[in-house]
Amino acid sequence: MKKLPLSPEDHWIRRWTKSLKDLSTSQIRHGIGHDCAVLSSFPSHLDVVLKTDAVVEGVHFTRSTPAGLAGRKALARALSDLAAAGATPRAALITAGCPNLRSASRLHQAYRGLSLLAKQFRLSIVGGETIRTRQLLLSVSLFGTVPKKTSPNRAGARPGHLLFVTGKLGGSWPRRHLTFTPRLAEGQWLVRNKFPSAMLDLSDGLGADLPRLARASRIGFRIYPDQIPLSPRATPKLAFTRGEDYELLFSVPPKLAPSLLRRWPFPTPLTVIGSCLPIHQGYQTDGLPLRGYDHLR
Amino acid sequence: MKKLPLSPEDHWIRRWTKSLKDLSTSQIRHGIGHDCAVLSSFPSHLDVVLKTDAVVEGVHFTRSTPAGLAGRKALARALSDLAAAGATPRAALITAGCPNLRSASRLHQAYRGLSLLAKQFRLSIVGGETIRTRQLLLSVSLFGTVPKKTSPNRAGARPGHLLFVTGKLGGSWPRRHLTFTPRLAEGQWLVRNKFPSAMLDLSDGLGADLPRLARASRIGFRIYPDQIPLSPRATPKLAFTRGEDYELLFSVPPKLAPSLLRRWPFPTPLTVIGSCLPIHQGYQTDGLPLRGYDHLR
Repeated sequence: MKKLPLSPEDHWIRRWTKSLKDLSTSQIRHGIGHDCAVLSSFPSHLDVVLKTDAVVEGVHFTRSTPAGLAGRKALARALSDLAAAGATPRAALITAGCPNLRSASRLHQAYRGLSLLAKQFRLSIVGGETIRTRQLLLSVSLFGTVPKKTSPNRAGARPGHLLFVTGKLGGSWPRRHLTFTPRLAEGQWLVRNKFPSAMLDLSDGLGADLPRLARASRIGFRIYPDQIPLSPRATPKLAFTRGEDYELLFSVPPKLAPSLLRRWPFPTPLTVIGSCLPIHQGYQTDGLPLRGYDHLR
Repeated sequence: MKKLPLSPEDHWIRRWTKSLKDLSTSQIRHGIGHDCAVLSSFPSHLDVVLKTDAVVEGVHFTRSTPAGLAGRKALARALSDLAAAGATPRAALITAGCPNLRSASRLHQAYRGLSLLAKQFRLSIVGGETIRTRQLLLSVSLFGTVPKKTSPNRAGARPGHLLFVTGKLGGSWPRRHLTFTPRLAEGQWLVRNKFPSAMLDLSDGLGADLPRLARASRIGFRIYPDQIPLSPRATPKLAFTRGEDYELLFSVPPKLAPSLLRRWPFPTPLTVIGSCLPIHQGYQTDGLPLRGYDHLR
């Protein structure tokens, strides 16, 4: 009788995923270790939300970044996008890449950082795979839900709507981009209460993300630089260009704004930074640059 | 009035996704260009199936592989896993990585190869992102459905069950691994008719994938080497070790086998290659090696 071999890949998958077993819920029919993850369906009053996002060594973190924080960031970024959709994360798939088995312990640490954050948000990791890449890489695919027909996108802002941001901007470096808390509770509350006409998360800086919202909604905008809520030592210019704030940017019809400001139940700051204009009035930023961080730069 | 800038990343996303617009269906509420993809929910008699799979230059294809075929392979591999779950693919997210804008035209070709295959299987590409990586990389996340509680996994094989494979094995190189058709119709038919007690797709060779099925099901097995259906110029050893056949391997209770062979409606070959044994009888392969292709090797 032969002993069944465990390939190095299977060995590492088993090691990485051992700590994740307790995340599984009764809704998971097949999880890690099968060809696909299978979940029982969700009620029909919910829409399905899908998102994929990756972090790469040398781009989103450096060789000296603690690997646990890199893993945490991989998941937190994707959760931030679900926050902008007002969605509740349900399950994640993780693609983990590293150059060789020597670097696999760093990947293992990354996986642990990621799974701690998953636990915090009661998110199940239901599958994934390992690949060989020249630099450490973590790609997260999220499956979530949102009440039917409520999820805002980038296209609903109208002239006259006010532009809000959560939190403080421009302070992502050196550390906050690794430790930020995705605004899931805030995003879900905003959507449940139907405040945002359009919403996205600020990943590349106001200078890049405002134009995305404006293009999708076919509007112009005016920003008041001295109204931008700033992190310590940040400037309005950094809030436009530095990126990685992972706060929510959203538009609200003016008649809803007083109610929003009164009812906002979170300690997270909430600030009006400008308003939407008819498209022919253009993009008024008092000279702040309309460019942000570009991943292919 | 300032002209709205389009960042290089946005420019490429727009270019890549232009040809995909016609893939959208009425079920997609928000697709490409928003923070998340949002789909209306699926009927409650369906389970949700999730899968992620990546291909990397230097591992799954080479610098001289036509990029369109590399992109096709990225999607075909993930579809092969859905085939093993008996699932119908519904939506895909694509993560595309390349070193710089110079290499982006190769990525664009890869995207086109991928989207042609998506069209063939009436699959919607609803989102994704671009990242900077040292080598060309394509990661595919699939969302699919399968009738409730029908999807087989790797754990249901029992002693006495027969082991079947589709197609012919051992002939993945030099070209078939780039051009194979995922066995979606076959997998869906098998599951709809409740034949497989366990199923997976042969990605790493019988030598690696048989032990995975055996470990999950806690069984032994006997394989008849001269029964293995072989591609031209392949050997049983290559069927065990070469990998990338992307055929289905599944176990069937013996009383169902005659009906399966009689009713099989596909031109794809269907062959019994062995049977499941009690675990204490071990792994009998007539000397064929129990190891396959290992991605971290």
